[in-house]
Amino acid sequence: MNMKTRYGIGPLLPVPGFTASGLHSGIKKNGKPDLMLIASDRPASVAGAFTTNIVRAAPVEHSRSVVAAGSCQAIICNSGNANAYTGPQGAADCAEMAALTALTLGISADQVLVASTGVISQTLPMNAVRSGIPKVATELAADGWRAASEAILTTDLVAKCHSTTFQANGRTITVSGIAKGSGMIHPNMATMLAFVATDAPVASAHLQPLLADVTEQTFNRITVDGDTSTNDCVLLLANGAAGGQPLVPDAPEWNAFSCAVYEVCDNLARAIVADGEGATKMVTVTVSGLASEDDALRVARQIATSNLVKTALFGSDPNWGRLIAAAGQAGVPFDPPRASLTIGNVPLVKHGSYLGAKAEASCGQVMAGDEFTIELSLGEGDGSASVVTCDLSYDYVRINADYRS
Amino acid sequence: MNMKTRYGIGPLLPVPGFTASGLHSGIKKNGKPDLMLIASDRPASVAGAFTTNIVRAAPVEHSRSVVAAGSCQAIICNSGNANAYTGPQGAADCAEMAALTALTLGISADQVLVASTGVISQTLPMNAVRSGIPKVATELAADGWRAASEAILTTDLVAKCHSTTFQANGRTITVSGIAKGSGMIHPNMATMLAFVATDAPVASAHLQPLLADVTEQTFNRITVDGDTSTNDCVLLLANGAAGGQPLVPDAPEWNAFSCAVYEVCDNLARAIVADGEGATKMVTVTVSGLASEDDALRVARQIATSNLVKTALFGSDPNWGRLIAAAGQAGVPFDPPRASLTIGNVPLVKHGSYLGAKAEASCGQVMAGDEFTIELSLGEGDGSASVVTCDLSYDYVRINADYRS
Repeated sequence: MNMKTRYGIGPLLPVPGFTASGLHSGIKKNGKPDLMLIASDRPASVAGAFTTNIVRAAPVEHSRSVVAAGSCQAIICNSGNANAYTGPQGAADCAEMAALTALTLGISADQVLVASTGVISQTLPMNAVRSGIPKVATELAADGWRAASEAILTTDLVAKCHSTTFQANGRTITVSGIAKGSGMIHPNMATMLAFVATDAPVASAHLQPLLADVTEQTFNRITVDGDTSTNDCVLLLANGAAGGQPLVPDAPEWNAFSCAVYEVCDNLARAIVADGEGATKMVTVTVSGLASEDDALRVARQIATSNLVKTALFGSDPNWGRLIAAAGQAGVPFDPPRASLTIGNVPLVKHGSYLGAKAEASCGQVMAGDEFTIELSLGEGDGSASVVTCDLSYDYVRINADYRS
Repeated sequence: MNMKTRYGIGPLLPVPGFTASGLHSGIKKNGKPDLMLIASDRPASVAGAFTTNIVRAAPVEHSRSVVAAGSCQAIICNSGNANAYTGPQGAADCAEMAALTALTLGISADQVLVASTGVISQTLPMNAVRSGIPKVATELAADGWRAASEAILTTDLVAKCHSTTFQANGRTITVSGIAKGSGMIHPNMATMLAFVATDAPVASAHLQPLLADVTEQTFNRITVDGDTSTNDCVLLLANGAAGGQPLVPDAPEWNAFSCAVYEVCDNLARAIVADGEGATKMVTVTVSGLASEDDALRVARQIATSNLVKTALFGSDPNWGRLIAAAGQAGVPFDPPRASLTIGNVPLVKHGSYLGAKAEASCGQVMAGDEFTIELSLGEGDGSASVVTCDLSYDYVRINADYRS
């Protein structure tokens, strides 16, 4: 199993109280699924994390206001068209998607989250959307998550999903998530969407800080090409169908819940990197020994986004000079003679000294694999952080430059 | 003439009082020139700009201290070995290069600037350097600049040079410069060096702020791959051989002098981008209409370093969605519906509205050329800034990933 399917095709459990579905409505010209619906049989608490790009698509603006109100009962999502940079018409189309979904499900329009991904600057083919929404609602099913996960893809090579369960107050609670990663459709940019649902009973007030924290540790610590899109969003819904006492921070069960949400998001985030455009390798860059986690994160990000590093990853080249020089660009002070570097646990540089050709050859063998860790220790501090990245290959250039030729 | 030679092979005039030379000393295995010397017949005022990377090579540390003292009479530079990450031995070798050059020229060692570029983490082959320095000194000549410009290259495809003259106090004053750009030698990173000499009479105290300002407007506004190296440095020497009153800021001649230094540095900077690794196009990204130049520069840099934009440049794709989305990532607030975009003076987006397939086709034709400008106007402010970048091609990946295969 290669890294794409290893991470992409995780377990996918039904979540009590939720149903899901996906189908082809006619937005995509190639006949692939393009409309997804997730519904809860009762109002769910909701949390969201959205793109920090100044340029935001209409559905992002809509869903931010739904999340702010704290309650929702459905997510409608189309792929093939991002409804971004579409002006007042785009906002009206998004509102209509929410209204039509609400009408079909017999709920209020302010209970419907909307997401879109695909081509930008074109208005949505609303005829397809209008006829599709009643159909996708008809197909809602407890085991419809797989179909849902396929209907949100653009040029992703594999669907991305992950589920886990935990015990709380004598009940088994499920957390399931689906995601899409960086795909490119003319004239568009990478877009990341992730939808996570749980039957845990949790108030929105507690859900939002948890999602913010988990997103910071997972989706915000991956990079494919350093670009953030107009449509990125992560949504977490908790409908309480498991019953029992509400989970609250500091209660014994909260840790298990946090870990379950983290596990799902971490796996989805890695699946996105593994399926990054042109990616042949997934690499975890860990930086330690700095004064703070923030410092370590800045250095790890600088390494993980360096084109010189990413091309060296593609070439299976243990190019420690590039790694340490990239670290030196982050603006975080450190003492180069204290730097130690391991690749896949094989030491390559120790306290500033290169360990020789044999160590380098061993590291090269590690790098010929499709998943490994690069660890850079820069001193004696306690601050450490990791960023997951992929290599920069010919296919990245081909996918992003050549689609017209 | 393609863009590389159009920018690389500029005029190269002798500078009174200066001599230069370059030859093969044995550092490079391929027999190409690898040792350069520039000498002034009298102490010159000196200014320098150095890498901001935390990891700095030994010669950078040495030359910083010479520049701080404000006077120098020679630059010795080798290519093929960066003397970076070489510890105490590297510092000793650098000091010996300065001392031997001083001895050969009959000057003091604290009058010698040192620069190195090439492979990192290997100590200099000092036997070659020791025998090379007396030879390169023997070849010093007023018209030796061309040989000098060739001896500082690594994997550059063309030598980079530019000269200009101006009139001050009835005298003709010359400014000549040579540079090298991003080359890659295992296991190394991009390195930029530029040496500029003039016979203008200028005190170091006035030279340093001018160079800082010009560097900020030229070398700091280019990008090839977003990485900065351990060895980057720009040196400006003024020996006063033209005679006459010293040039001082606010005097009528100062503007002509500033413009001449700017012209040389701007041409060298563009030559570096044109000869960037794998570059097939040189593109000036201009952002205007923001509150300040700083804001505009941040947005222009974000566009110029985006891999999605750079691959679109390679593909001659007028992908305005990527351009505007990249702009939105800079963290500078703007109102997307006010954005206007032209490529090679052809309007593509006006006040947030896409101008259609015909405009896009015209822009695609512009982008098929090897040099053009992208102008993004984001509002009504006075702040504008430009960054010069190149495309991201298959060859960039090949050069940086494949040299072992």
